[in-house]
Amino acid sequence: MAHIDLGLDERAHPGINGPMLFRPETAGPLNQLAEALLRAPHPTLTAGERELIAAYVSGLNECRFCCASHSAFAAAQLPAGMPLVDQVRADPATAEISDKLRALLTVAAAVQRGGREVTGAHVDAARAAGATDLEIHDTVLIAAAFCMFNRYVDGLGTLAPDDPAVYEMSARRIVADGYRAT
Amino acid sequence: MAHIDLGLDERAHPGINGPMLFRPETAGPLNQLAEALLRAPHPTLTAGERELIAAYVSGLNECRFCCASHSAFAAAQLPAGMPLVDQVRADPATAEISDKLRALLTVAAAVQRGGREVTGAHVDAARAAGATDLEIHDTVLIAAAFCMFNRYVDGLGTLAPDDPAVYEMSARRIVADGYRAT
Repeated sequence: MAHIDLGLDERAHPGINGPMLFRPETAGPLNQLAEALLRAPHPTLTAGERELIAAYVSGLNECRFCCASHSAFAAAQLPAGMPLVDQVRADPATAEISDKLRALLTVAAAVQRGGREVTGAHVDAARAAGATDLEIHDTVLIAAAFCMFNRYVDGLGTLAPDDPAVYEMSARRIVADGYRAT
Repeated sequence: MAHIDLGLDERAHPGINGPMLFRPETAGPLNQLAEALLRAPHPTLTAGERELIAAYVSGLNECRFCCASHSAFAAAQLPAGMPLVDQVRADPATAEISDKLRALLTVAAAVQRGGREVTGAHVDAARAAGATDLEIHDTVLIAAAFCMFNRYVDGLGTLAPDDPAVYEMSARRIVADGYRAT
């Protein structure tokens, strides 16, 4: 049970869904931020690649609900599906991804440890692998945003279902309707 | 200089202002979130108290720009001004604040370490000191949001001016116009 009374059945509204229904005034901007970062048209990063960064950071933060959710959202939008998500979560260094995405995941991991952990060398390596300033910006903000979402979900002690079908159902909704509809 | 080319003079747009001008699509929801959390009417927490939580968490994350900014915003909206902000940043245990605010700051510090660091005991202590579920929710989300803002600002290596007058000028703008106008 969550740390506060959300006024709803958490099994029907697990993870972030409960707090978002409890406080619609903050849910609006939070959903709009997720939509802008993860779903809106992007010149170079696919939705699947952006969800992969979100899943990876959520795994580093050990946030079970967000990691399962965004792993499912990434898998649903990447040609290589969940096997690739599992590879990245296990070790980006050996995952079958581009060197550019690998370098962006290294930037994301630094952001997860703390903003001051990101060095010029991290950014230079991403740029040498072909990353644009927009890709570096968005990677930093996706990683930072999941340091928020993960703390929001776990800081309130919300429910993270065990059944993978829950997350697959959410993935179908996100792919069809995006974050604005949640 | 920031890690990416923001296309502007950072001295005129320090800290988070540069990345927000660089990427207006994400600046919109970020400002709306700050407005909802820190400025919108609240039944029990004043704007000064909410800015105090933001300044405290930014200090724990050692984010110079955000800590100086939100310390100035808190001081401008608290009757006891900057001396109280300095007390809280030095040690909430001995600061001249209510036991409720002290317990909420303990919750915020746990969130800063990680979402899973928040225990039922932290929440019970806040409730015993008179905190409502809405206050606990908002404290968790303010602390989580500043774990994002701080990483965004420092992960991009933005400029944090030394001159306190810069932050005092921002405080006057925030008190007058809020976050939506930035």
